[in-house]
Amino acid sequence: MSLIVQKYGGSSVADAESIKRVAKRIVETRKAGNDVVVVVSAMGDTTDDLLDLAGKVTPLPEPRELDMLLSAGERISMALLAMTIKGMGHDARSFTGSQAGMITDARHGAARIVDVTPVRLREALSEGAIAIVAGFQGFNRDTRDITTLGRGGSDTTAVALAAALDADVCEIYTDVDGIFTADPRIVKSATKIDRITSEEMLELAAAGSKVLYIRAVEYARRHGVTLHVRSSFSNAEGTIVYNPEDGAKVEEPIISGVASDLSEAKITVVGVPDIPGKAAHIFTIVAGTGANIDMIVQNVSAANTGLTDISFTLPKSDGTATMQALQAAKGEVGFESLQFDDQIGKLSLVGAGMRTNAGVSARFFSALRDSGINIEMISTSEIRISVVTRADSLSEAVRTVHSAFDLDSDVEAVVYAGTGR
Amino acid sequence: MSLIVQKYGGSSVADAESIKRVAKRIVETRKAGNDVVVVVSAMGDTTDDLLDLAGKVTPLPEPRELDMLLSAGERISMALLAMTIKGMGHDARSFTGSQAGMITDARHGAARIVDVTPVRLREALSEGAIAIVAGFQGFNRDTRDITTLGRGGSDTTAVALAAALDADVCEIYTDVDGIFTADPRIVKSATKIDRITSEEMLELAAAGSKVLYIRAVEYARRHGVTLHVRSSFSNAEGTIVYNPEDGAKVEEPIISGVASDLSEAKITVVGVPDIPGKAAHIFTIVAGTGANIDMIVQNVSAANTGLTDISFTLPKSDGTATMQALQAAKGEVGFESLQFDDQIGKLSLVGAGMRTNAGVSARFFSALRDSGINIEMISTSEIRISVVTRADSLSEAVRTVHSAFDLDSDVEAVVYAGTGR
Repeated sequence: MSLIVQKYGGSSVADAESIKRVAKRIVETRKAGNDVVVVVSAMGDTTDDLLDLAGKVTPLPEPRELDMLLSAGERISMALLAMTIKGMGHDARSFTGSQAGMITDARHGAARIVDVTPVRLREALSEGAIAIVAGFQGFNRDTRDITTLGRGGSDTTAVALAAALDADVCEIYTDVDGIFTADPRIVKSATKIDRITSEEMLELAAAGSKVLYIRAVEYARRHGVTLHVRSSFSNAEGTIVYNPEDGAKVEEPIISGVASDLSEAKITVVGVPDIPGKAAHIFTIVAGTGANIDMIVQNVSAANTGLTDISFTLPKSDGTATMQALQAAKGEVGFESLQFDDQIGKLSLVGAGMRTNAGVSARFFSALRDSGINIEMISTSEIRISVVTRADSLSEAVRTVHSAFDLDSDVEAVVYAGTGR
Repeated sequence: MSLIVQKYGGSSVADAESIKRVAKRIVETRKAGNDVVVVVSAMGDTTDDLLDLAGKVTPLPEPRELDMLLSAGERISMALLAMTIKGMGHDARSFTGSQAGMITDARHGAARIVDVTPVRLREALSEGAIAIVAGFQGFNRDTRDITTLGRGGSDTTAVALAAALDADVCEIYTDVDGIFTADPRIVKSATKIDRITSEEMLELAAAGSKVLYIRAVEYARRHGVTLHVRSSFSNAEGTIVYNPEDGAKVEEPIISGVASDLSEAKITVVGVPDIPGKAAHIFTIVAGTGANIDMIVQNVSAANTGLTDISFTLPKSDGTATMQALQAAKGEVGFESLQFDDQIGKLSLVGAGMRTNAGVSARFFSALRDSGINIEMISTSEIRISVVTRADSLSEAVRTVHSAFDLDSDVEAVVYAGTGR
């Protein structure tokens, strides 16, 4: 008998019909002889609706109360799912984050898991029941308050429970068939990836693949949890995200996939005095706004001027605050001006095989050159190359690179409603 | 400094604007130097919407899961209210039923309070915060599950907390100005009652007055809690429901008010053998359906037949199940037939003063006779007379009796939206 953790996102439980469909799938898993723990997100747009309501009563909702408010969403979906399964004649019990033993720190809205004590889940399983758990939420022991884990929190809940319960697999149900070699909305011939290492998946997620959240993949890698990304709308086999055993020789494809991202903007600090400590000064200011910096490029100092330019990318949503913070420090840092550019796209090529395969970069840059796509920034890791292009060149760039690395499939990828959550 | 418990019903927190209006009232109470505990219901139609959803996924929702589902409604309203007050610059903290120490038995959907341990509320108050508590919900220690208290549960939560915290008063905010001598929608000249004993209020509630639930009034009487029924839409003074001290001589008005009720139906069991034990047999069957019997009348046995008729009233919603249960036992009990009548109205005259004032019944029945209203059933308590009339005569009967006891006011009563909850 296996223990399977299944996670269903908001689009999989958006209404009564969807809940019944998901309930059937859960019951089938149980009937196949498995112990089942289900982690569920809030229904469809519930979380956004609750956020809207909060915005109507006060401009800056108290984080503790916002967590209390948002945690209601999963209570609704989990109770409905449990009663649906019960109504189908199978034992099921719902548990809040607190009841499921998801112990976190007290950082409301972005709590970190500090302990997982799923005593009640083990009880339920040992009595033959299916355990339904509210994703996204936890409990802080010191303040005795409800917390939420932030974006992608339900994925993280599922992975954390899979780790704590030593589950055989953690199935992440979404509205796409799995992880693809590129975004199927951009590259029609994108190929579904059958198996990928968690290391590569991390790079893909970091590079803009929206199907899995970095945090959940990180947690899975650290705790040796195998993920299985599947669609709740089909029976397609999905993608296995696995952790190769230490020293095991994994037959890795050179390239796993091409990720693209239109959510970032670029800030250029123009005319920075080219003396030690200036970059540190600038990024200390940026860090103070809480912005997540991605790529950084510093130009070679122009001859005789003693000045240089520093560019970096960050989420568009962090743009305003960061520009304001830098502008306020203009005199202190001594730069000339600031430029803000939100018309950029980021393309990343990910593959563990590029570690040992020469010529990947050459092939990558040649493909882009042949298509006449201009590269504005470059950054690399051991298993990833990322470039920044104009936003309106991104789709073409993705298709070009996807073809150049022979990733095109003969079958057209199926895209379901939504974007993956 | 006083400690005030305030309860706001669903219509008082139906949307963002209402929540802001209620928040202002709470803050004013706090600024006047009081400690404040607020009990809040789910917003507007939230509970009904959640029940609808449950009905769509399964015909008979598991009670444990239904309680988990419904409890989400108050989480939403309480968190929104707390963040609104916080946003106004005053400290406020929301607490679930469990966090507020509302300990109940495990009867899901109709849990009874077994203990109230408001440790966290006392902490919040001692730190100067306003405590916002989810009404209607509690926690069972044995099963460690969420429970709900059933209809009128938020009133009961408020009264129970007022008792446990030894509050000076429990203010019940609703959408009418207080308790009236008759339903202002029927009797335009109904007079607002300034003060009424909990004993009289109990009779009024039992007789169909919808403003307060019997259970909450009972709890208040047993624990010596003073209630103050007020409108959240106006600053009118409302009605005080008080508990006269033992032996205190209370100057009671002869009559407090006239209550009316169209929610009941009448079942007549025709041709019951007039031998001992038959009535017991019938009402054992009825009790088995969980129906709440109100009035019972047994006719004098008709000469020579040895048969009698037994009539009783019960909520219309219990009608079908009760008729089915009786029909199934027809042979066993030996009655001739069943009649079901849902076109009845109940009128009750309530007043502690009628204990010591002769002539109240005579005046009451004379008034009805003079208006040509036919009386079908009669039942009385020490401080109440109730009669059943045709449903379409009820309004006229109420106005007639209201006038006959000089309860008419010079001022027309103001009726706000809704029916009191």
